[in-house]
Amino acid sequence: MTLRRQARHSLQGLTGLLGHSNRRVRRKKPGQAPGTLLHTGQQQLDQMLMTVHDYDTERCQSLAIDQIDASAPYLGSSTKTWIQVRGLHDVERLQQVMDYFELHPLIQEDILSISQRPKVEPYGEVIFVVLRMIRAEPAADGRPKLKSEQVSLVLGSNYVLTFQESDDTLFDPVIRRLGMKNTRMRRHSVDYLAYALLDNLVDHYFSALDLVSETLEQLEEQVLEQPRPEDLQSIHALRRDLVYFRKSVWSLRDGINSLIRDDSPLITSDVKLYLRDVYDHLVQVIDSIENQREILFSLYDIYMSSLSSRMNEVMKLLTIIATIFIPLTFVAGIYGMNFNPEISIWNMPELNWMLGYPFALGLMASIAGGMLLYFRRRGWL
Amino acid sequence: MTLRRQARHSLQGLTGLLGHSNRRVRRKKPGQAPGTLLHTGQQQLDQMLMTVHDYDTERCQSLAIDQIDASAPYLGSSTKTWIQVRGLHDVERLQQVMDYFELHPLIQEDILSISQRPKVEPYGEVIFVVLRMIRAEPAADGRPKLKSEQVSLVLGSNYVLTFQESDDTLFDPVIRRLGMKNTRMRRHSVDYLAYALLDNLVDHYFSALDLVSETLEQLEEQVLEQPRPEDLQSIHALRRDLVYFRKSVWSLRDGINSLIRDDSPLITSDVKLYLRDVYDHLVQVIDSIENQREILFSLYDIYMSSLSSRMNEVMKLLTIIATIFIPLTFVAGIYGMNFNPEISIWNMPELNWMLGYPFALGLMASIAGGMLLYFRRRGWL
Amino acid sequence: MTLRRQARHSLQGLTGLLGHSNRRVRRKKPGQAPGTLLHTGQQQLDQMLMTVHDYDTERCQSLAIDQIDASAPYLGSSTKTWIQVRGLHDVERLQQVMDYFELHPLIQEDILSISQRPKVEPYGEVIFVVLRMIRAEPAADGRPKLKSEQVSLVLGSNYVLTFQESDDTLFDPVIRRLGMKNTRMRRHSVDYLAYALLDNLVDHYFSALDLVSETLEQLEEQVLEQPRPEDLQSIHALRRDLVYFRKSVWSLRDGINSLIRDDSPLITSDVKLYLRDVYDHLVQVIDSIENQREILFSLYDIYMSSLSSRMNEVMKLLTIIATIFIPLTFVAGIYGMNFNPEISIWNMPELNWMLGYPFALGLMASIAGGMLLYFRRRGWL
Amino acid sequence: MTLRRQARHSLQGLTGLLGHSNRRVRRKKPGQAPGTLLHTGQQQLDQMLMTVHDYDTERCQSLAIDQIDASAPYLGSSTKTWIQVRGLHDVERLQQVMDYFELHPLIQEDILSISQRPKVEPYGEVIFVVLRMIRAEPAADGRPKLKSEQVSLVLGSNYVLTFQESDDTLFDPVIRRLGMKNTRMRRHSVDYLAYALLDNLVDHYFSALDLVSETLEQLEEQVLEQPRPEDLQSIHALRRDLVYFRKSVWSLRDGINSLIRDDSPLITSDVKLYLRDVYDHLVQVIDSIENQREILFSLYDIYMSSLSSRMNEVMKLLTIIATIFIPLTFVAGIYGMNFNPEISIWNMPELNWMLGYPFALGLMASIAGGMLLYFRRRGWL
Amino acid sequence: MTLRRQARHSLQGLTGLLGHSNRRVRRKKPGQAPGTLLHTGQQQLDQMLMTVHDYDTERCQSLAIDQIDASAPYLGSSTKTWIQVRGLHDVERLQQVMDYFELHPLIQEDILSISQRPKVEPYGEVIFVVLRMIRAEPAADGRPKLKSEQVSLVLGSNYVLTFQESDDTLFDPVIRRLGMKNTRMRRHSVDYLAYALLDNLVDHYFSALDLVSETLEQLEEQVLEQPRPEDLQSIHALRRDLVYFRKSVWSLRDGINSLIRDDSPLITSDVKLYLRDVYDHLVQVIDSIENQREILFSLYDIYMSSLSSRMNEVMKLLTIIATIFIPLTFVAGIYGMNFNPEISIWNMPELNWMLGYPFALGLMASIAGGMLLYFRRRGWL
Ligand SMILES: [Mg+2]
Ligand SMILES: [Mg+2]
Ligand SMILES: [Mg+2]
Ligand SMILES: [Mg+2]
Ligand SMILES: [Mg+2]
Ligand SMILES: [Mg+2]
Ligand SMILES: [Mg+2]
Ligand SMILES: [Mg+2]
Ligand SMILES: [Mg+2]
Ligand SMILES: [Mg+2]
Ligand SMILES: [Mg+2]
Ligand SMILES: [Mg+2]
Ligand SMILES: [Mg+2]
Ligand SMILES: [Mg+2]
Ligand SMILES: [Mg+2]
Ligand SMILES: [Mg+2]
Ligand SMILES: [Mg+2]
Ligand SMILES: [Mg+2]
Ligand SMILES: [Mg+2]
Ligand SMILES: [Mg+2]
Ligand SMILES: [Mg+2]
Ligand SMILES: [Mg+2]
Ligand SMILES: [Mg+2]
Ligand SMILES: [Mg+2]
Ligand SMILES: [Mg+2]
Ligand SMILES: [Mg+2]
Ligand SMILES: [Mg+2]
Ligand SMILES: [Mg+2]
Ligand SMILES: [Mg+2]
Ligand SMILES: [Mg+2]
Ligand SMILES: [Mg+2]
Repeated sequence: MTLRRQARHSLQGLTGLLGHSNRRVRRKKPGQAPGTLLHTGQQQLDQMLMTVHDYDTERCQSLAIDQIDASAPYLGSSTKTWIQVRGLHDVERLQQVMDYFELHPLIQEDILSISQRPKVEPYGEVIFVVLRMIRAEPAADGRPKLKSEQVSLVLGSNYVLTFQESDDTLFDPVIRRLGMKNTRMRRHSVDYLAYALLDNLVDHYFSALDLVSETLEQLEEQVLEQPRPEDLQSIHALRRDLVYFRKSVWSLRDGINSLIRDDSPLITSDVKLYLRDVYDHLVQVIDSIENQREILFSLYDIYMSSLSSRMNEVMKLLTIIATIFIPLTFVAGIYGMNFNPEISIWNMPELNWMLGYPFALGLMASIAGGMLLYFRRRGWL
Repeated sequence: MTLRRQARHSLQGLTGLLGHSNRRVRRKKPGQAPGTLLHTGQQQLDQMLMTVHDYDTERCQSLAIDQIDASAPYLGSSTKTWIQVRGLHDVERLQQVMDYFELHPLIQEDILSISQRPKVEPYGEVIFVVLRMIRAEPAADGRPKLKSEQVSLVLGSNYVLTFQESDDTLFDPVIRRLGMKNTRMRRHSVDYLAYALLDNLVDHYFSALDLVSETLEQLEEQVLEQPRPEDLQSIHALRRDLVYFRKSVWSLRDGINSLIRDDSPLITSDVKLYLRDVYDHLVQVIDSIENQREILFSLYDIYMSSLSSRMNEVMKLLTIIATIFIPLTFVAGIYGMNFNPEISIWNMPELNWMLGYPFALGLMASIAGGMLLYFRRRGWL
Repeated sequence: MTLRRQARHSLQGLTGLLGHSNRRVRRKKPGQAPGTLLHTGQQQLDQMLMTVHDYDTERCQSLAIDQIDASAPYLGSSTKTWIQVRGLHDVERLQQVMDYFELHPLIQEDILSISQRPKVEPYGEVIFVVLRMIRAEPAADGRPKLKSEQVSLVLGSNYVLTFQESDDTLFDPVIRRLGMKNTRMRRHSVDYLAYALLDNLVDHYFSALDLVSETLEQLEEQVLEQPRPEDLQSIHALRRDLVYFRKSVWSLRDGINSLIRDDSPLITSDVKLYLRDVYDHLVQVIDSIENQREILFSLYDIYMSSLSSRMNEVMKLLTIIATIFIPLTFVAGIYGMNFNPEISIWNMPELNWMLGYPFALGLMASIAGGMLLYFRRRGWL
Repeated sequence: MTLRRQARHSLQGLTGLLGHSNRRVRRKKPGQAPGTLLHTGQQQLDQMLMTVHDYDTERCQSLAIDQIDASAPYLGSSTKTWIQVRGLHDVERLQQVMDYFELHPLIQEDILSISQRPKVEPYGEVIFVVLRMIRAEPAADGRPKLKSEQVSLVLGSNYVLTFQESDDTLFDPVIRRLGMKNTRMRRHSVDYLAYALLDNLVDHYFSALDLVSETLEQLEEQVLEQPRPEDLQSIHALRRDLVYFRKSVWSLRDGINSLIRDDSPLITSDVKLYLRDVYDHLVQVIDSIENQREILFSLYDIYMSSLSSRMNEVMKLLTIIATIFIPLTFVAGIYGMNFNPEISIWNMPELNWMLGYPFALGLMASIAGGMLLYFRRRGWL
Repeated sequence: MTLRRQARHSLQGLTGLLGHSNRRVRRKKPGQAPGTLLHTGQQQLDQMLMTVHDYDTERCQSLAIDQIDASAPYLGSSTKTWIQVRGLHDVERLQQVMDYFELHPLIQEDILSISQRPKVEPYGEVIFVVLRMIRAEPAADGRPKLKSEQVSLVLGSNYVLTFQESDDTLFDPVIRRLGMKNTRMRRHSVDYLAYALLDNLVDHYFSALDLVSETLEQLEEQVLEQPRPEDLQSIHALRRDLVYFRKSVWSLRDGINSLIRDDSPLITSDVKLYLRDVYDHLVQVIDSIENQREILFSLYDIYMSSLSSRMNEVMKLLTIIATIFIPLTFVAGIYGMNFNPEISIWNMPELNWMLGYPFALGLMASIAGGMLLYFRRRGWL
């Protein structure tokens, strides 16, 4: 019950599930050379963290390193190596890492620009993938929110590099699996590791989708029962969130598809089957987003027509009251006139009738009765 | 008559033709290895049922088996074999079956995840098809509802595997036909059986479509005659149903099309003609869904404008009553003032006229008459 | 004038130009074998009619036959032969005809299912075309209506088969042309005859289009002048008709296009030029349908805003009357109070003024005047 | 100023910029042979005019001819020849011309059917182009209107034929340029002339576009300042015009594009560069039409919401007046009751108070004041 | 704070972020020869400025020249040369420049027509690019506005020509980078320079986008809090701006894409990687524009429903006041009637009751109380 209430809270106010922070980034000045490095996001960590995961069928070890040179023995050997970099604010150290792998200036630039459109780009010796992690997680106030962060991945012949904005535990399940013996991941080449990392990210989209979908269902319930002005703001906020979400996933789908179609020596045909599974999940995510958008449009329509319905009700009440009482009040007004009945028998003789008052009341009652009959016949009562 | 009334009942409330249950599934945790088996649906049967249908031109026999090894003699012989599995909750036994056929981990995973997007995927030796059965059937309360269930099919060189969530009698017509001698199904290879099973599923879509279409027509009739607020909820629920229906059919069309276009040794060119027929039916289903959506949009428009129309009527009545009586009441108010006619001849001399009262009534009558004339001229009466 | 009035009648009520009958068909039970024959329409003729049209450059003869075997001499010779079948209810006799030509079971099934999506399908030796005749024709009550019927056509190497639901005179112009010597139709192979039959059908779409367009223009006139609630129903009915019409034409276009693009030995390149003309007409029909839909959307918008406009007018009148008279009535109410002027000079001394009554009337007049001035300044008068 | 006023006039009424005449054409009866000639438009000229323009690098002469045979010497020589035909009503003479060039029956038919969709069709030896001239021109009443007319063009190896409905001076600039020595037109083959004629037609679309755009801007200004019901009709009429305009240009673009892409010996690669320029202009025209449609949709939205805004204002005034005066009138009504104060001290003692009247007025003043305060607090005053 | 206020000012009035000037251009008369030069914009500079930037790996110099012949030594040498032309009004001098490079007449025409759709066109020896600079800049009144200007670029084998309308400092960052030694720009061929110029232009789109986005957010805030009629005009103006912006960017994307796909000897594969980055940025810009349009649509919906909401509130107040007081006033009217209680005991005996007045007041109080109860039960209070 408390969880439901918390989730419902998230509908109030304008914020939506995604904070505004995602929309503000620093921009490079126009006309700068490509490869000019500027971190466009905010600092999320005290200092950059680097971890080397080195493995083959036999062994697997993970160790934190301080300087990128420390990875040389692992890269030089026949093992497969994953270097995980977290924190993008320290441009100088980051550049050392990227230069060490001789990454193309355009790759270097994109890793640091945190509002990239997701994409998959082959650059000769390596494949560069940039995409957006979106996951549901409890926010400071306990209500679930969407968290969004840019993740970049470089796939070389025997290594994988990943770059994250924060020390999010995102990749922990993959690290755990890497530690197990006799798994596909240990047997396969690094392309399978790259797949596993992508798959992990895409799995999180479903958690985000579930949060959106749950929020939408609560909103739906609310709007169908008793729409409130703040629900309109929730509709708008959710629409914004879906626009952002769709943009974050849409082009990734095409990127993965091109990986499957193209013939890169870096991706074995075996791993392509697995990438097809990732592709399939992305299509499912996009379908769901589209469907939720359509349901959101429908909700707006319902909101609008319920406004009209309620207006109709209000007007009907006013009309019933007014059309019954206005003529009655008029009759009362008639007999409240001060014409002098003593001057002639034409002047308000009713006033002096024995049953003048009951006659007036009866007249009013029949007018009211006629009106009520009329309203009943129209189905208004 | 009772049937009509029943069907109309299905319009009330919010539920729509599809229950909500279809929308809730369990999710695997992000980052798990592909092939980690988790049944994401609910248990529908007490225990898993397995039936072997073994046939060739000469003979056909169906028998229930307990262990998958029992199918070995049939699979090993030159006959064609269909193994029908019903019930997906017993992951362990299911895995035995799937491992027996050495199904790819991704196939195994998808068979158990019951909210798959329909798809047709070649995996080397086999073709994997997952799709959604949607059929109209009488619900517990006698009103027809849509029932939805995931069905998976694996086509090998001489066998077909099918997996269903429940013991729905869905495939019974095919089993009956399999029992008849000298039919195309008995003569052809297993690809024809796979076609027949798919065709059977797609035939059911038309029953679902007819239910939707009948419901829509009743709604249309109701909205055109006398729209009610609950009709708006029915429009919304139907819109939701169509979104779900479309999503369930849309990508199947492309999958079937790729089967026809691609050159798989598992599908003979003869059977491709039949698959083209299935494809054609899917296009018809999608067309109908699209058209019903458009009519639904039109219904919403009609609903909205009928709200406006009725508001107009209400306001016109109020305006007529008010604009006629307000001036009359004002006149009555005038002659109800207490100015002293005895102090000067300027003070309400009418009160002491012989025909003061008739004069006042006449004045009122002419005002009312003028108003009525004005309303008639505007076409309001 | 009478014609106009008649046409306008067709706008009233809900029926639209197409009867509802088109939407109801029988369905085969799910899971039946392909080629299971069921006529899904209604019987339109007492008995099936068969006519053989046999022709070459020299001669042309038409004769009714009873048994399909009677066509053998014509089919066997070097002449070109068209066998025209009308009436689809007698499944048994129809099957004899179709089996005689060894038509594929799927063709046989489609000829009898009268709610086919239009399509053009090559089946090895023959090309199968199914499409929908839509034509304007005077209905029983003299008002023009749209009539719709399924027509199937099978093109072989030296024969054409056509199947119609009723004995509609649809193909009579082609039969007349066939009777003329030295025409292209007599010189060319049967593919030209097939073209001529298709062209004839597509020509009728324009008559249907003209009826829709005329109806739409009348509706437009009506809505722009004085919209009525029944016009909204006409808009809805027309929107439904256009949805049906579009669906009936849309996929035919692609079918004809594939005939032109593909290399079938049954279609000579000479006839392809003529088919391109049919294609061109279909595109024109579809364009017109799309445009009429858009104008229909625009009409709905106009309908809605004219409702709002009239509401505005009504409210303005009410507001003017009420805001003028309510204050006046209040003033009259003041001087109708019964405070005793004799007790103190502060109690309603106006009542005993010499010009108390004229003063009150003057006060009212200035209030009314002020209001009128205010309304004029706002442009309401 | 007068020009502005004139242009604004064109917004009133329903006619739009294009007359209705464009929408009515005669139709051929269904089932007639292709090449059956029927002029579906109205006669625009007393008699058909034929002009031969014969030119090469050295010389250029234009002469009117009566019989098409008179063109034989020009066609037979090595010069390039353009035969310009104006007036399509005289079917017999026209057919002589067309037969002289052995035009395909389908070309002959299309030249006479004046409501063709624009298209570019290769017919072996010739290329046939049919398109729609749309130009702005002052109408009889001095207000600019759009004029629309079908133009056909046949491009042969050394000749160009053009067919126009009227003697519009459309092609005069090209004739003037043809008269100049040492121009590209004189040096190039007839394909360049064909380009020049097409380019000339497309240039006129911009004049039409400017008229539409100017009309739209005036409408925009009007609607944003003070929307009137007739503006809604103008929006509808303009929307209709744009539908017609778009339809007239859309498929021409694809036709020109196919000319550029295809390899016809009739079009040199040099002239293809020029056709690409025509193509580019057509894309610009279509873009502008789409944008104007979108702005028109936006205008409709503004129209609707300004209706609502004004309704709000009206209702607010009514509410303010009514809610202030209704309670006051009630108070006055209280003290107008005739309870007898002499019977008990409980019966309306206020009537006999010294300051009863001022007390009543004060009560009313505080009620009114309270209401005004309330309205101010809500921001209504 | 002042910046916010300034930005908010930009929302008032109709102007939008782009001035109207962008929409008015001169047109060439229909039918003129291609290459007829007419500058369709306004003069922006006193006189045309020409600068030669000549560079290779070793040296780089920039110098202003007066006659185009002065560039001969630079063009003839092995250095790379960029000639920057600013000001398009002096057609004669401009033509000298363009003729010097033997630009195709269609290129010459497009450079001068300042309302080109962006495009990339190969012309044999050169590639011609025309596009639109759009940048945010402070306007005369200090509020940021969008500035728009056409820029053309011709890429030859060893030179680049650029043409700008004004002396905008747009390209200054590129000139500065050109001055630095040992940069990619100095090492690469002129195709890299062309890329750098295009990239510079596209970078500016983001500044424009940020301005639009900021304006939209302020508008959103305003509309969600307290919508005003002028906000509707702002929505319309912004919608217009976005239509213009989208049109200016859309086709450039396809142009850049064709540069990447096609095999022109003028573009090295190395530079294609960089052009892919420009392409990627254009897709991002277009995505953002589409999303902002969608949010704008949502804002309009919110505006409309908030109008309805407020109307509801107004009507509810009116209804509460009126339905409470109308019956009360009626009761007061009853006891204000002048029936003579002395004539019979049936005539208004209440008037002479001891507690007649309190009874009447009590009656009124219970009516009012009942009403209030009713309103509370409906949730209106
Ligand atoms: Mg969409
Ligand atoms: Mg959608
Ligand atoms: Mg959509
Ligand atoms: Mg949509
Ligand atoms: Mg849509
Ligand atoms: Mg649709
Ligand atoms: Mg749609
Ligand atoms: Mg649609
Ligand atoms: Mg739609
Ligand atoms: Mg909609
Ligand atoms: Mg449309
Ligand atoms: Mg459309
Ligand atoms: Mg459209
Ligand atoms: Mg549309
Ligand atoms: Mg639209
Ligand atoms: Mg649409
Ligand atoms: Mg619409
Ligand atoms: Mg568009
Ligand atoms: Mg658009
Ligand atoms: Mg549009
Ligand atoms: Mg559109
Ligand atoms: Mg749109
Ligand atoms: Mg719209
Ligand atoms: Mg809409
Ligand atoms: Mg959009
Ligand atoms: Mg969009
Ligand atoms: Mg869109
Ligand atoms: Mg859109
Ligand atoms: Mg949309
Ligand atoms: Mg919308
Ligand atoms: Mg829409």
